[in-house]
Amino acid sequence: MAKMATSDEPAERKETPIAKKVHRKRKRTALRRRRPQTLGLAPGSITAVPGAPPAVIRVISYDADRVEERPIARVSDLKSLHDRRTGVSWINIDGLGDPDTLSQLGEMFGLHALALEDVVNLHQRPKFEDYGDIDFIVLRMPSLSPHLDLEQVSMFVTDRFVITIQERPGDCFDALRDRIRNGKGRIRQRGGAYLAYAVLDAIVETFYPVVESYTDRLEETESRVLANQTENVVAEIHAVRHDLRALRRAVAPTREVLASMARTDASDPQGDTHIFLRDCHDHTVQLLEALDTNRELASSLMDMHLSNVSMRMNEVMKVLTIIATIFMPLGFIAGLYGMNFDGDLSPWNMPELRWRYGYLFALGAMGLTAIGLVLFFRSKGWLGGDAHEGNQGSEPEEARPSAGAK
Amino acid sequence: MAKMATSDEPAERKETPIAKKVHRKRKRTALRRRRPQTLGLAPGSITAVPGAPPAVIRVISYDADRVEERPIARVSDLKSLHDRRTGVSWINIDGLGDPDTLSQLGEMFGLHALALEDVVNLHQRPKFEDYGDIDFIVLRMPSLSPHLDLEQVSMFVTDRFVITIQERPGDCFDALRDRIRNGKGRIRQRGGAYLAYAVLDAIVETFYPVVESYTDRLEETESRVLANQTENVVAEIHAVRHDLRALRRAVAPTREVLASMARTDASDPQGDTHIFLRDCHDHTVQLLEALDTNRELASSLMDMHLSNVSMRMNEVMKVLTIIATIFMPLGFIAGLYGMNFDGDLSPWNMPELRWRYGYLFALGAMGLTAIGLVLFFRSKGWLGGDAHEGNQGSEPEEARPSAGAK
Amino acid sequence: MAKMATSDEPAERKETPIAKKVHRKRKRTALRRRRPQTLGLAPGSITAVPGAPPAVIRVISYDADRVEERPIARVSDLKSLHDRRTGVSWINIDGLGDPDTLSQLGEMFGLHALALEDVVNLHQRPKFEDYGDIDFIVLRMPSLSPHLDLEQVSMFVTDRFVITIQERPGDCFDALRDRIRNGKGRIRQRGGAYLAYAVLDAIVETFYPVVESYTDRLEETESRVLANQTENVVAEIHAVRHDLRALRRAVAPTREVLASMARTDASDPQGDTHIFLRDCHDHTVQLLEALDTNRELASSLMDMHLSNVSMRMNEVMKVLTIIATIFMPLGFIAGLYGMNFDGDLSPWNMPELRWRYGYLFALGAMGLTAIGLVLFFRSKGWLGGDAHEGNQGSEPEEARPSAGAK
Amino acid sequence: MAKMATSDEPAERKETPIAKKVHRKRKRTALRRRRPQTLGLAPGSITAVPGAPPAVIRVISYDADRVEERPIARVSDLKSLHDRRTGVSWINIDGLGDPDTLSQLGEMFGLHALALEDVVNLHQRPKFEDYGDIDFIVLRMPSLSPHLDLEQVSMFVTDRFVITIQERPGDCFDALRDRIRNGKGRIRQRGGAYLAYAVLDAIVETFYPVVESYTDRLEETESRVLANQTENVVAEIHAVRHDLRALRRAVAPTREVLASMARTDASDPQGDTHIFLRDCHDHTVQLLEALDTNRELASSLMDMHLSNVSMRMNEVMKVLTIIATIFMPLGFIAGLYGMNFDGDLSPWNMPELRWRYGYLFALGAMGLTAIGLVLFFRSKGWLGGDAHEGNQGSEPEEARPSAGAK
Amino acid sequence: MAKMATSDEPAERKETPIAKKVHRKRKRTALRRRRPQTLGLAPGSITAVPGAPPAVIRVISYDADRVEERPIARVSDLKSLHDRRTGVSWINIDGLGDPDTLSQLGEMFGLHALALEDVVNLHQRPKFEDYGDIDFIVLRMPSLSPHLDLEQVSMFVTDRFVITIQERPGDCFDALRDRIRNGKGRIRQRGGAYLAYAVLDAIVETFYPVVESYTDRLEETESRVLANQTENVVAEIHAVRHDLRALRRAVAPTREVLASMARTDASDPQGDTHIFLRDCHDHTVQLLEALDTNRELASSLMDMHLSNVSMRMNEVMKVLTIIATIFMPLGFIAGLYGMNFDGDLSPWNMPELRWRYGYLFALGAMGLTAIGLVLFFRSKGWLGGDAHEGNQGSEPEEARPSAGAK
Repeated sequence: MAKMATSDEPAERKETPIAKKVHRKRKRTALRRRRPQTLGLAPGSITAVPGAPPAVIRVISYDADRVEERPIARVSDLKSLHDRRTGVSWINIDGLGDPDTLSQLGEMFGLHALALEDVVNLHQRPKFEDYGDIDFIVLRMPSLSPHLDLEQVSMFVTDRFVITIQERPGDCFDALRDRIRNGKGRIRQRGGAYLAYAVLDAIVETFYPVVESYTDRLEETESRVLANQTENVVAEIHAVRHDLRALRRAVAPTREVLASMARTDASDPQGDTHIFLRDCHDHTVQLLEALDTNRELASSLMDMHLSNVSMRMNEVMKVLTIIATIFMPLGFIAGLYGMNFDGDLSPWNMPELRWRYGYLFALGAMGLTAIGLVLFFRSKGWLGGDAHEGNQGSEPEEARPSAGAK
Repeated sequence: MAKMATSDEPAERKETPIAKKVHRKRKRTALRRRRPQTLGLAPGSITAVPGAPPAVIRVISYDADRVEERPIARVSDLKSLHDRRTGVSWINIDGLGDPDTLSQLGEMFGLHALALEDVVNLHQRPKFEDYGDIDFIVLRMPSLSPHLDLEQVSMFVTDRFVITIQERPGDCFDALRDRIRNGKGRIRQRGGAYLAYAVLDAIVETFYPVVESYTDRLEETESRVLANQTENVVAEIHAVRHDLRALRRAVAPTREVLASMARTDASDPQGDTHIFLRDCHDHTVQLLEALDTNRELASSLMDMHLSNVSMRMNEVMKVLTIIATIFMPLGFIAGLYGMNFDGDLSPWNMPELRWRYGYLFALGAMGLTAIGLVLFFRSKGWLGGDAHEGNQGSEPEEARPSAGAK
Repeated sequence: MAKMATSDEPAERKETPIAKKVHRKRKRTALRRRRPQTLGLAPGSITAVPGAPPAVIRVISYDADRVEERPIARVSDLKSLHDRRTGVSWINIDGLGDPDTLSQLGEMFGLHALALEDVVNLHQRPKFEDYGDIDFIVLRMPSLSPHLDLEQVSMFVTDRFVITIQERPGDCFDALRDRIRNGKGRIRQRGGAYLAYAVLDAIVETFYPVVESYTDRLEETESRVLANQTENVVAEIHAVRHDLRALRRAVAPTREVLASMARTDASDPQGDTHIFLRDCHDHTVQLLEALDTNRELASSLMDMHLSNVSMRMNEVMKVLTIIATIFMPLGFIAGLYGMNFDGDLSPWNMPELRWRYGYLFALGAMGLTAIGLVLFFRSKGWLGGDAHEGNQGSEPEEARPSAGAK
Repeated sequence: MAKMATSDEPAERKETPIAKKVHRKRKRTALRRRRPQTLGLAPGSITAVPGAPPAVIRVISYDADRVEERPIARVSDLKSLHDRRTGVSWINIDGLGDPDTLSQLGEMFGLHALALEDVVNLHQRPKFEDYGDIDFIVLRMPSLSPHLDLEQVSMFVTDRFVITIQERPGDCFDALRDRIRNGKGRIRQRGGAYLAYAVLDAIVETFYPVVESYTDRLEETESRVLANQTENVVAEIHAVRHDLRALRRAVAPTREVLASMARTDASDPQGDTHIFLRDCHDHTVQLLEALDTNRELASSLMDMHLSNVSMRMNEVMKVLTIIATIFMPLGFIAGLYGMNFDGDLSPWNMPELRWRYGYLFALGAMGLTAIGLVLFFRSKGWLGGDAHEGNQGSEPEEARPSAGAK
Repeated sequence: MAKMATSDEPAERKETPIAKKVHRKRKRTALRRRRPQTLGLAPGSITAVPGAPPAVIRVISYDADRVEERPIARVSDLKSLHDRRTGVSWINIDGLGDPDTLSQLGEMFGLHALALEDVVNLHQRPKFEDYGDIDFIVLRMPSLSPHLDLEQVSMFVTDRFVITIQERPGDCFDALRDRIRNGKGRIRQRGGAYLAYAVLDAIVETFYPVVESYTDRLEETESRVLANQTENVVAEIHAVRHDLRALRRAVAPTREVLASMARTDASDPQGDTHIFLRDCHDHTVQLLEALDTNRELASSLMDMHLSNVSMRMNEVMKVLTIIATIFMPLGFIAGLYGMNFDGDLSPWNMPELRWRYGYLFALGAMGLTAIGLVLFFRSKGWLGGDAHEGNQGSEPEEARPSAGAK
């Protein structure tokens, strides 16, 4: 006997849409796992990330008066920059394909080997580590393209340098670069800590549209659940929840990073960057609140959906019961008078068959039975309006205060 | 084949009541999202809120002896007020449509750019921030009109000035203004901190009737669930839960705001406003407790509702089973004697049909079968009182201690 | 079509027992809400509680040597007492109907206006507030009469005075008064703090029988659930849970009150009342533990109940399936030989009808079908003992260690 | 109509096994509640525990060189022991029937009245209290006989005396007494604090076999759930959960007791008993972890069980649906040709009945219908292996890594 | 009547695959419990672990310049090593069969008796204990072979010695030993604390592939749930959850161990090992996060699975209802005209049977009934696409952002 839905036929499974999705997702997950083979290596070893694009270095140097921007081919080109005594330099590296670039950079700027190992290990959660003069920060930069992607961004911050290292080209810093070029805002007057804040702020801002897209998806799902539609609801909620958890895991430690940085800066009598960091910290708190709201909404939708499923089942069962309960007695009566007892042999054998109004009598008995059962069902409240019993709003509902808050 | 409930027909969906509600809610949500396009702007930029009403400025100045009230057309009119050395002034701004007003105000009173940015960003959670001489407070003011609305109210507080900025005209401060005008209570003898407390207290008081209206809705739902009614229960609980979450998100950080303010004031040897703030803090704790009680009640109602649904299904199934189980054997007997085996050809072919009391024998067999099955069902406890098995209270219930506490 | 269970017929609903209960409960809730109309009043305003009984004042004054007890008609009669320099006086006020009494009292003893406002606002959660020389304590005193009632009791405590203010006459302090009169125990040797402890202890003791009555109700419900009875279980658990939450909200902050008081007293080098307060604190911890146990028991009962409902449904479905599955094939066979194909016209038309043993052949086919199906069901384990599959204990169960702990 | 399952017939209920169990349990619970009638008594009053056995006193005195053991008839016999200046004495009292014994003991050793009241109040949770020179400890000693019993053990500890007071004879200290007698281990060299630790350690060790017996019960239940058996599973899990909660309530505060004692001892520069207490503390942490694991296992089993119930219901419904869906159309065809339209009067009336192969045509129609429906069900995956769909392990399962950890 | 699924036939149960698995698991669990019979022994007693392999000792001694490796037959052979003044020695013991070896070792190196007792008691949770000069660490080393096994590894750490004691041969330290032999990395320059870190790091690294294998199992289960397959899903999730809990219990206290060690080292002005320990601590945080993600995924899968089961039941019920509801009325009509009322005796008795088009009329009535019911079902949305209503992805789903994050 062939089984359509067993796991013995993986080849066949691939052809359904759902299987295709699962398949693609697997590939994605496998991609994400491309972490260097560090098992058994000494701590602090930097290895290439398999399949990562080669490193591209870009530098923006600025002080209050001037901005200089140039691409860098080799790390050694950064030497003159490193020796300069004034201004702030933002060194951005896209791509983790060249472990040599990172180790040369580490040597030139005195970056700790464990920090550099973290840069190429793509499983970091956002964190802030204090290596003496140099702060090391890891963050996650979200994008929807169209699947949620949380690119790892590492930063080394000193007074005069900010080094940002991204997994691949493409980021959310263009507006920030424009602000530096145009000299708008405070950024040109400030040092590396403020630039680090500006980078952080740009990343945190990027979470807003991403989180809102999930709010949109949930609200669309909500309208479908309220309209009593059940297709794909569970899989959709499952997918959204998965991404919300991933976002939470990215945002919650980012909040800790900002709190740590604000604390560090606040202990410096001259700094006032902590006021900005506190503002950015508030944004992460807002994001977490939005994520929690979405998570609770997802749970509530799941409950509603399951209740809908039960309600529908109830309705189906009622229809079945009503029909079966009415027609079984009727069918029985019909069957009764379909018996072949021989009335010729005995007056006791089905005399009704020989009555003048026997047929009408039988029809009447059927009719009375049916009417009695209908009245019984009505007394149970099983008839009338039950089809709309799910979640459809009635008029009084309209006038009540309802969900409209933030 | 036409599907009545698929998502392919959005146009059609709008015409059902539930769809209308969803539609309206969407518009509302979209409205709430009207936050300025700050993405990529320098931190501290003040932009107009799309669709916000223009700013209307009102000032009440008072000291122990006199009260002065006047509308203000331009921010520059506040200059003389700002230079005065005595008394307290309450500057109230309704409407966020004029970013210029805010920035002029910020310049005159030395308000921090990040705080002003927060004023026009309508996603703030309640918070208390200390900018040196000036305290910055954000709150949420609830209203039911008829949907829950949590208007953002921002406050700047110094010894001599309280600046409140609301999203739009209409607020809960009229009784407070009357108290200032009439010189009742302590308010005319005190400074800006006490006025700030009075504003906060007025806002916190406003939450009481709002929270109570949700308690009422839940109690109405409770009485419907206890009466075994199932229409709209899930959607109603879903909506109430959503609003309770929104209220909780507004009240919980307000409690923190009040705790922070009380701590700040308590460290001032002369102030005694912290006693009043502690009282107001207790109110927020009461509100949170009421919200939690409501949330738990909502969960409990959901459980009861789902149990009701199961119970009803059980009842439906029992009716079906009883009817089917009784009439199937009867129908079988009837069918048996409806067979056309030819008794003329063989004495073994349905001799019952030729018995004198064959028909009565068949009826008797049917009757005995029916009685046996009814006894079987009775022994299972499936008959008798099952229709009332849901949640209807029986007499002993009445005499027991029951839910009547706070 | 008439609907029996819609919300359109409130008048009709009132006549069922459940509706009556709901109705009564509503009235009760409304009663509880009788808080003064303070919205918009200056903080610290004392207003009458609507419908509250008039204030009745009773005083017990004592020191180590003597006890004096007298009713007081007016607050001014307390003047001499207030001026006395020795002994302890316990002023008890029953009834909140006279705001003047409270304000005069406040003036004479220097009670803070906000504390007095809390006395008449019947939504206080238990709390301990330190107003310099005077401590202000709010508690909840439980009673079952027969519904749970948590009366608000306010206390002002100084070295020489304890003022207790109750919502209405009737309390749990008679044994304490007797101890004062008889001079038993330490109470006559101690000051106001010890008297305050004794009052607190009396209130906390009162919670024990109340909590135990809910344990009894839950155990009765447990025995019903274990005996597979389903009537009212959900409503009963719902009601008990509601009251348990109310009790928890009363006891948990009482624990904090006691901890605060013990901390205050422990910092006094001479006091040893903190040892007694710590003992009382332990009692609240015991109570909370008992409440938590009951709450978990309620959840577990709900789970069992729902599982019972599912089990019963399963059983019902099995009976239906067995009956339907046996009689449908039999009925089909009977129907087959009830067909009227004309055997006279063709030897291919139902020759069985003309067989000598045709009828016996048909009966045999039916019998074999039935036996085969019964064997099939037996192989599924659907027959035999299924009626007892719910939760009835079998013999091995008896010998096992089982739930008998605290 | 008689109801088999209502609560109106308690007399009848007693005769079923489950009712017997419930009945016995009630008696047990009532027994546990035998606390003295302290309501209204002055704090520190010692009253007899109703039904408690009389007190039996045993003393072991020892120092490094010698051991003396003797039964004591009256408390006054302890006088000489109390006046001695060296060695350690362990006074053990079994039975709480004599309040006088306790008060004499309290007088002789200076035990606080509140502590003695706690000794006879059998609702104490484990706690550690510091009364100056004397430490007061309450613990729970578990036993399975066969129901879980958590006997209250109180201890007073000074440098030279350890007084243990148990509810009734029988304890877990025999191995400890042997160690004292034989002089094995450190115990004879140490003081009262170490003896107290040894007593504590003996009690904590006693929890291990008790907790493991619950692990065994759960694993047995697990094997039954995995084998898809459903009898008694819910009641069994309910009972185990109840006892696990009771054990948790006994062990968790014991951990706090040990932490407090270790902290006290660690502040003493000479003591090293805190190392032993820390070890014992670790044991309570292990026990709590085992309890949590069991609790989670119980939840998981409940989930699996409910899923099994659903799965079985699904299977039952499928059988019903398959049978009904096949035989209804067949029965309809049979019924069709059982109609009595008179073919003699009209050629349009059921000409099939007169066809030569009419009967075979009808049988063929039935066969095709049946085959078509079977193919339809097969395409749904409803046939084939469904009976094994529950939780039975398939071969691949065997090869996978699976639950085998601690 | 034979019961297939009762617990009365344990012998029979063993023959099914699931019973075999359970049986094997039991044996495994029993094995794990092989802890020494310490009940009643003095604390600090070292006893043999039943069934443990004999101890095998291996030593690696090294300093910056040289490495020496040798097997040791007796503990006394370690004497020379112990007396040496320079370099670091790593003494590894596989197997707990010889309590004498441990006690000799304890004597030679001054290990505390309680620590040695913990070594042979295989229920330790990971912990860090400070015994003056010697640190005692317990860890769990995971392996899949193929069942999850969490071997207990104990470590004693001083400046110059690291003693590791494992339950049995086979470990994850080969790469570390090679690094010591080859002099790669920092390890040869550092002391015992760094070696201890390296061992810890090796163990923590070993958790990564184990945790990932569970992620793989869950993702495989996810794809099966999404493809609407239900076999073994519950048992698989149950097993994975069990192991995830065991892993969590192993990793969470390991994090605490690392935090304690980092704190200890950070207080040493010369040490910089705390930077490495912090890195390793971050790894445990990552592991915990992965475990939590998996746990949430397991819960979500369970929800989806249960929803699938409900959905399928719904579908089955719909098919049954549609078939029954269509054929019951048809069958009734057929039965009606199968009645044997004698039309010869009365014109009122079933005149239809004598109509010319009576049969066609009856067929027409049946056809209209069927069409009407099909239209009714279509209006309910029960037809069309319902078979795909489960969780299969539709095209629009493809284009949406979906679960692809870390």
